[in-house]
Amino acid sequence: MPSHPSFPERLKAGSPVLTAWCGMPDPSVAGMLAHEAFDAVVMDLQHGSIDFAAALQAVPLIAAAGKPSLVRIPVGDFASASRFLDAGVSGVIAPMINTIEDARRFAAFTKFPPVGERSWGAYGALSLTRLEPGAYLQQANDLTVSFAMVETREALAIIDDILAVPGIDGIFIGPSDLSIALSGGKSVNPAGAEVEKALDHALARVRAAGKVAAIYAVSGARAAQLSAKGFHMVSIGSDISMLMAGAHAALAAARG
Amino acid sequence: MPSHPSFPERLKAGSPVLTAWCGMPDPSVAGMLAHEAFDAVVMDLQHGSIDFAAALQAVPLIAAAGKPSLVRIPVGDFASASRFLDAGVSGVIAPMINTIEDARRFAAFTKFPPVGERSWGAYGALSLTRLEPGAYLQQANDLTVSFAMVETREALAIIDDILAVPGIDGIFIGPSDLSIALSGGKSVNPAGAEVEKALDHALARVRAAGKVAAIYAVSGARAAQLSAKGFHMVSIGSDISMLMAGAHAALAAARG
Amino acid sequence: MPSHPSFPERLKAGSPVLTAWCGMPDPSVAGMLAHEAFDAVVMDLQHGSIDFAAALQAVPLIAAAGKPSLVRIPVGDFASASRFLDAGVSGVIAPMINTIEDARRFAAFTKFPPVGERSWGAYGALSLTRLEPGAYLQQANDLTVSFAMVETREALAIIDDILAVPGIDGIFIGPSDLSIALSGGKSVNPAGAEVEKALDHALARVRAAGKVAAIYAVSGARAAQLSAKGFHMVSIGSDISMLMAGAHAALAAARG
Amino acid sequence: MPSHPSFPERLKAGSPVLTAWCGMPDPSVAGMLAHEAFDAVVMDLQHGSIDFAAALQAVPLIAAAGKPSLVRIPVGDFASASRFLDAGVSGVIAPMINTIEDARRFAAFTKFPPVGERSWGAYGALSLTRLEPGAYLQQANDLTVSFAMVETREALAIIDDILAVPGIDGIFIGPSDLSIALSGGKSVNPAGAEVEKALDHALARVRAAGKVAAIYAVSGARAAQLSAKGFHMVSIGSDISMLMAGAHAALAAARG
Amino acid sequence: MPSHPSFPERLKAGSPVLTAWCGMPDPSVAGMLAHEAFDAVVMDLQHGSIDFAAALQAVPLIAAAGKPSLVRIPVGDFASASRFLDAGVSGVIAPMINTIEDARRFAAFTKFPPVGERSWGAYGALSLTRLEPGAYLQQANDLTVSFAMVETREALAIIDDILAVPGIDGIFIGPSDLSIALSGGKSVNPAGAEVEKALDHALARVRAAGKVAAIYAVSGARAAQLSAKGFHMVSIGSDISMLMAGAHAALAAARG
Amino acid sequence: MPSHPSFPERLKAGSPVLTAWCGMPDPSVAGMLAHEAFDAVVMDLQHGSIDFAAALQAVPLIAAAGKPSLVRIPVGDFASASRFLDAGVSGVIAPMINTIEDARRFAAFTKFPPVGERSWGAYGALSLTRLEPGAYLQQANDLTVSFAMVETREALAIIDDILAVPGIDGIFIGPSDLSIALSGGKSVNPAGAEVEKALDHALARVRAAGKVAAIYAVSGARAAQLSAKGFHMVSIGSDISMLMAGAHAALAAARG
Ligand SMILES: [Mg+2]
Ligand SMILES: [Mg+2]
Ligand SMILES: [Mg+2]
Ligand SMILES: [Mg+2]
Ligand SMILES: [Mg+2]
Ligand SMILES: [Mg+2]
Repeated sequence: MPSHPSFPERLKAGSPVLTAWCGMPDPSVAGMLAHEAFDAVVMDLQHGSIDFAAALQAVPLIAAAGKPSLVRIPVGDFASASRFLDAGVSGVIAPMINTIEDARRFAAFTKFPPVGERSWGAYGALSLTRLEPGAYLQQANDLTVSFAMVETREALAIIDDILAVPGIDGIFIGPSDLSIALSGGKSVNPAGAEVEKALDHALARVRAAGKVAAIYAVSGARAAQLSAKGFHMVSIGSDISMLMAGAHAALAAARG
Repeated sequence: MPSHPSFPERLKAGSPVLTAWCGMPDPSVAGMLAHEAFDAVVMDLQHGSIDFAAALQAVPLIAAAGKPSLVRIPVGDFASASRFLDAGVSGVIAPMINTIEDARRFAAFTKFPPVGERSWGAYGALSLTRLEPGAYLQQANDLTVSFAMVETREALAIIDDILAVPGIDGIFIGPSDLSIALSGGKSVNPAGAEVEKALDHALARVRAAGKVAAIYAVSGARAAQLSAKGFHMVSIGSDISMLMAGAHAALAAARG
Repeated sequence: MPSHPSFPERLKAGSPVLTAWCGMPDPSVAGMLAHEAFDAVVMDLQHGSIDFAAALQAVPLIAAAGKPSLVRIPVGDFASASRFLDAGVSGVIAPMINTIEDARRFAAFTKFPPVGERSWGAYGALSLTRLEPGAYLQQANDLTVSFAMVETREALAIIDDILAVPGIDGIFIGPSDLSIALSGGKSVNPAGAEVEKALDHALARVRAAGKVAAIYAVSGARAAQLSAKGFHMVSIGSDISMLMAGAHAALAAARG
Repeated sequence: MPSHPSFPERLKAGSPVLTAWCGMPDPSVAGMLAHEAFDAVVMDLQHGSIDFAAALQAVPLIAAAGKPSLVRIPVGDFASASRFLDAGVSGVIAPMINTIEDARRFAAFTKFPPVGERSWGAYGALSLTRLEPGAYLQQANDLTVSFAMVETREALAIIDDILAVPGIDGIFIGPSDLSIALSGGKSVNPAGAEVEKALDHALARVRAAGKVAAIYAVSGARAAQLSAKGFHMVSIGSDISMLMAGAHAALAAARG
Repeated sequence: MPSHPSFPERLKAGSPVLTAWCGMPDPSVAGMLAHEAFDAVVMDLQHGSIDFAAALQAVPLIAAAGKPSLVRIPVGDFASASRFLDAGVSGVIAPMINTIEDARRFAAFTKFPPVGERSWGAYGALSLTRLEPGAYLQQANDLTVSFAMVETREALAIIDDILAVPGIDGIFIGPSDLSIALSGGKSVNPAGAEVEKALDHALARVRAAGKVAAIYAVSGARAAQLSAKGFHMVSIGSDISMLMAGAHAALAAARG
Repeated sequence: MPSHPSFPERLKAGSPVLTAWCGMPDPSVAGMLAHEAFDAVVMDLQHGSIDFAAALQAVPLIAAAGKPSLVRIPVGDFASASRFLDAGVSGVIAPMINTIEDARRFAAFTKFPPVGERSWGAYGALSLTRLEPGAYLQQANDLTVSFAMVETREALAIIDDILAVPGIDGIFIGPSDLSIALSGGKSVNPAGAEVEKALDHALARVRAAGKVAAIYAVSGARAAQLSAKGFHMVSIGSDISMLMAGAHAALAAARG
């Protein structure tokens, strides 16, 4: 899009993209964080409290700060992926892509023919990109990023196949769910040794495929580690965590 | 419903039904346009910004103007079709009905047994129709219209089969997506020659099946052409386009 | 959860759980009814007008009254089941579970591995239960109740198989839809003889499986009958009916 | 207004006008109660939770049921009285009109010149009344009712003067506040002997002035008494009370 | 503000400022019209349906289009003038400024000391202007415009005195109310001879005072006339009118 | 109120009350901060973006955490003070109380007769306090706190008179506005020497009057200083500042 024409290119351009991660129900939160030093803003509709209408309202607010917006959709709600692309988001993160069929259906909803079956009606995106309909149709598949979440044993096992699906631009790792899966439901430990090994493996496979790798980090410190590993995008979560961290710091200072 | 008991009959009654097409997030827009000379109002939840809660609020506002309301649901979100019928809409338009299975699932959610599996709970519709539960159960399948959208090569190829699915009352053509499909993703040209030919073919098949044909028109002028072709319903879009046209006219007059 | 740690246990503890049933769009209604003598509050997203965002807002209001909250999700919208569990609801009711595959998919979205594939992100529930992540992961499958709705001939025919699906904690009977199904679409009669026979049968099968049985009652009087039958939970509907009953009583008194 | 052209006349036409009294935040509540046997619906912005935007949304819903709507505004917020008249309400109730100056200011905001200074912009009312601007300007002062609330000793003492203010169409008694005032803050007893005496006196003065008298009743039974006394309008409160009464009745029936 | 640092200067810079005039409840309408060829966008909280929260949400959307936003506040609600200035609007229009005291109170709420008593807390404006607090405090009185509406005989009679009040930057004429006032409540005729004469007089007095004159125009054609007269700002109303004009044009084209 | 029956007593009980200060539009923010270690939560309707409806929704969420809620109302909007007390807030902060008449009017709206003229209708508060109407009427004046803001030269000059007004329970200092006033509009410096001197003076006068003193602190560190000075309540602002501080910390950690 004009103010961020090359989000897919930016992802591959060197320094990792650091994104805010928003789940609070009010769209102004995403708008405000977009004015901070984040490179992009993700709104989480899988585990966050923000709903479709609010996330839609946030898209122009994030764009006003010159930043790309992304959404994580609820599991399997691919129709909303199309609707958010219509509104002008630069990327969609689909959770629990565990089969090649999942990946294909996701791509079908996010890419125009002949790659997929995305339906015409991108009025918000036309306004944000200032492209004519014909030009938008030609370029949209390359202007937006479809991230398949890899967060189960099944997904890890077929990561090369997922990466090979036309229209899947990258992988987004969910380290908490991955840790639950790898431990057979015994523990949630997103920075444990087994997860680390899986991250390295996944990252290598993504690089081999020439696509992009992204991941969720529970804190800034963890984001630094994951950036160093070579992820193209690291999402730092969440807005609520940041608000609480700010509150704790203020209270600590106040109470000495 | 009392004020519009014969929407399906009205569709076959002669002059084409001209509808407004609303995607703006505020339900009062649909309410206001219902007071203009449109015959019905469609709310678009596939590509519009209006969400479920807002569209629900619009239903009684449209009914207050004595007009039928319709919704276009997101791709595959058939559960919301039932919920809107519960609220009292007279028709549902389902995008991307590309297989017979798609058509069957759609009908399953919009028609009561034995035709489909629509679930009981139509409290808004009972209030708007003033029918007793038993009467509503008997009549509802005939009081409401289920439009399957035909907008891909696959759908065109099986249009007779789609029309033969019990509970599918008509076809709604999406000319933009159809043009993309027919051009293999090369261009969006909803009034091109290839699309025109497809429209004529589809219209002939719908008539042969004794069902109703509807279509989206990007402007009033285009709606006049499509009415003349014989479509039973033509939706003129959109509320945003109309607002912008009004703004352009006012600015042109102001600036001379 | 702390204030209601044993909702599944409470269901089996003797006297039936009587719940309010809320479909009005405003979350404060569910909050207010939670302060009345109901044992729990159900929010209905299948046939009610309350949407996802509003139901989410109601969860802490119901918790503030020390009561468990439940939701009935739209048909097949299992992703929202996970989201409501994230927010801290104690139970989810899934309509139209007509096949074993339906039941398995429902359980996949509501139970953590290894039973299902529920995804990590239960921030609201962590706050309400005050459990640490590891403890919540271990206990959540037993703290929350997944009700499969049995309301068709198909479902009745396989009720033992549905009850055998790991992660399905109980059955919720939809008597109106069941009456439509049993009459082949001829009538809606939720207290007819055929339905009664089906209720007795279903209740016996649930007991044999050691799980819990719940049902919707259109009035308090009907709830008394169904409680006497032995259902573990009876939902009295709806908020609108109660408002209207109150209005009728006031008008009758006013007009003499 | 077309469907209720003579609300002021209706008030004087014989049987008392019985109104619902709504304070819940959701506009659909007022819309639903308008379909019950109430003669009109009041929305309470002084002590209710409904806000300006929601009350505005309710006006067309109440009109759709063919009923007049009224609002009680917050103390001294006369600007909102004008805005609600713009939207098409048939009456405004202003609390705590304790001085002649209060009454004059209230009338200034609710009546067009030369009686008052109401400002032009009644777009909703033009739509609901289907009057041309010139006709609306001429008739509006007589189509709508301005009720001054009398609920203090000061107000009672000057009731004749308040009634004499041009543009004040009637008095609305607040019996709870009146009881607090008459007891010097010692008790709230809206049906006590002192209040009854004050009601009789006020009613006599209103009749002498040829204007209309209205009052709030905490229940249907109380409304019957107040109707019998001769009040032209009795408001039965509230929506929450009715919901709770309905809930209590349902629970009593359920628990035997 | 950075993108429109000289709104007061722009008003005096030659060609008249043409503004949209928005009263619809949804903030995205104002945001969309800001992307059209209007020079600024006014939101009307006196006679429009937009409320405080929605107008606040619109401010960053209008700013994102690089346009200044203004609000017309409800009569006498000067506190909201401050709150909108806090949010970053470039101008406030106060209706019914009929006395010098009215003008002084308005200025007190819109200008910082020593001119007025505006209170500190302009967080949105600091973000939009990117000024440091100290700089904003020094410049804000000159960056924003306070328009006193002149729309009664009283106001016309003291227009020189109103213009002389420190902090009053200009006059905004309300021609409909003025016509009602000048006709003694007999007619609403905003383009009648008596109004025209008053406009000429007011315009001359504003020029003599070196301040700015603005006015409401019911259509683009009327705006052209008023621009030609020399008004510095002409607001073309309204969003609803434009939507309806667009709908009429579309229907006329469709129905031939 | 039951969970915080002695908020006025708590204010005098020793350690200073530390409050969060919320201006974000979403009520869940106030609810979440109430679960942190703040002693109470203030919602700011003067300079914050939260509106009346949202603040009302937050009251039960804050109460659910067992904490008292307070609101700062817009300048002069005393009617909303009553409405918030109706909803169950424990305190109201009124900005710009610059005259004795201001203080009297504020107290009139917040205290029942004979102290003031607060109107009956405290339905939310009755529910939160679980008091019977008669008991609530007797105790409410002592259960809630009315803070007059002192933030101008005029107010400072008459601080003893303001403190002497019956129903004024304490003073809340606005140090930014005070700094602007004391510098004649030249600078905003809430911790400057002149302000410090004024704080000491004000604090001494409040103590002499046996009432409570509160103040706004821009950070936790400043709150520590002000607590040490002896203020009974220190509000740490704001929610946005805390969110931004959390974001800065996360980004700093992420970028090393
Ligand atoms: Mg995950
Ligand atoms: Mg299409
Ligand atoms: Mg059912
Ligand atoms: Mg009262
Ligand atoms: Mg005017
Ligand atoms: Mg201040």
